[in-house]
Amino acid sequence: MYNFPSKLLENAVNELSKLPGIGRKTALRLVLHLLKQSTTNTDALGESIIKLRREVNYCKQCHNISDSEICLICSSPQRDHSLVCVVEDVRDVMAIENTNQYKGIYHILGGIISPMDGIGPSDLHIESLVSKIAKGKVKEVVMALSATMEGDTTNFYIYKRLKACLPDRQEFDINITTIARGIAIGDDLEYTDEITLGRSILNRTPYENTLVK
Amino acid sequence: MYNFPSKLLENAVNELSKLPGIGRKTALRLVLHLLKQSTTNTDALGESIIKLRREVNYCKQCHNISDSEICLICSSPQRDHSLVCVVEDVRDVMAIENTNQYKGIYHILGGIISPMDGIGPSDLHIESLVSKIAKGKVKEVVMALSATMEGDTTNFYIYKRLKACLPDRQEFDINITTIARGIAIGDDLEYTDEITLGRSILNRTPYENTLVK
Repeated sequence: MYNFPSKLLENAVNELSKLPGIGRKTALRLVLHLLKQSTTNTDALGESIIKLRREVNYCKQCHNISDSEICLICSSPQRDHSLVCVVEDVRDVMAIENTNQYKGIYHILGGIISPMDGIGPSDLHIESLVSKIAKGKVKEVVMALSATMEGDTTNFYIYKRLKACLPDRQEFDINITTIARGIAIGDDLEYTDEITLGRSILNRTPYENTLVK
Repeated sequence: MYNFPSKLLENAVNELSKLPGIGRKTALRLVLHLLKQSTTNTDALGESIIKLRREVNYCKQCHNISDSEICLICSSPQRDHSLVCVVEDVRDVMAIENTNQYKGIYHILGGIISPMDGIGPSDLHIESLVSKIAKGKVKEVVMALSATMEGDTTNFYIYKRLKACLPDRQEFDINITTIARGIAIGDDLEYTDEITLGRSILNRTPYENTLVK
């Protein structure tokens, strides 16, 4: 249907429309915007994309994106290295860091188990989590995955894997916890779905714990 | 608020979020998507952007984006060179070409007069339109701009400019027309706004003209 007057234009539109959530009309709008920018700006954009993918480095310990071999969180002595929070990707790390409520370290899976998208346990950084914990210095693993079917499946897989792999000795008697599911702050009780409401009753918290200290 | 674990990541997010309609969260989502692609793909995207801006070429006659000095439409002998359609940008050319209803040539303004965005007549390809028509071979100018305040202003400015500039001789007695405004095919009469409905009554068309021949 589209009949581009130029190969350059067509090529740029094709490449941009491969991005998720960007269709051909949006891609064309972006391309026309780029054509009005200076070459300095468009070079900066193009090069930042090429450099990002070519020079990206992942922390050897937690698999987070990092400029150094070991990321700032993993190399910080102020962090509690006996507490490991398991997350899907770097966005979750940034979201949790923004709360200022967590002082442990992270372990980035790089995704969640999702048979529909062809992602199985071997595609994720699960074995390195097991071997990290097998060293025996971790006391608690906090599972912080999305509250979806895929997140729950991944939680359960990792739970089983850890239970099966760890030697039956006292130093491996670690706590596996998940972040609390419940009614979001500011939400109306009557509009909350039944599963969330049911869970929030089952996992009720001592009132004193909710008071800001 | 955002605390990026890597400069590379931050840089790519900053550059992508300069694009219209792409905020920082979307940019981060795009960047994480790009990190999962092969370097071949990301290089292709980055290079297509750099090349697009550096190597883009505009047709010397109609200002459309083109790979050659004169675009395919302007250089085609099958086109009616006495009929010029004035449009805002390449998207309009593509939209009109897709209708298969127009056999004339185009003139791309590169925008419309919009004082709010600081775009005046001198920022647009208006003078080259006037000098094209001053050669005396054009019989009709079809104004095909958006039906907005800015489009109407631009239409009026070009109309006045052409009337003032063209010598008062018979060969310059050109028709200046606009594409029809009216009720879109498939639209309900009762939901049409009053201005459109009013215009569609004023500019009513002989019924035979609407029959497919």
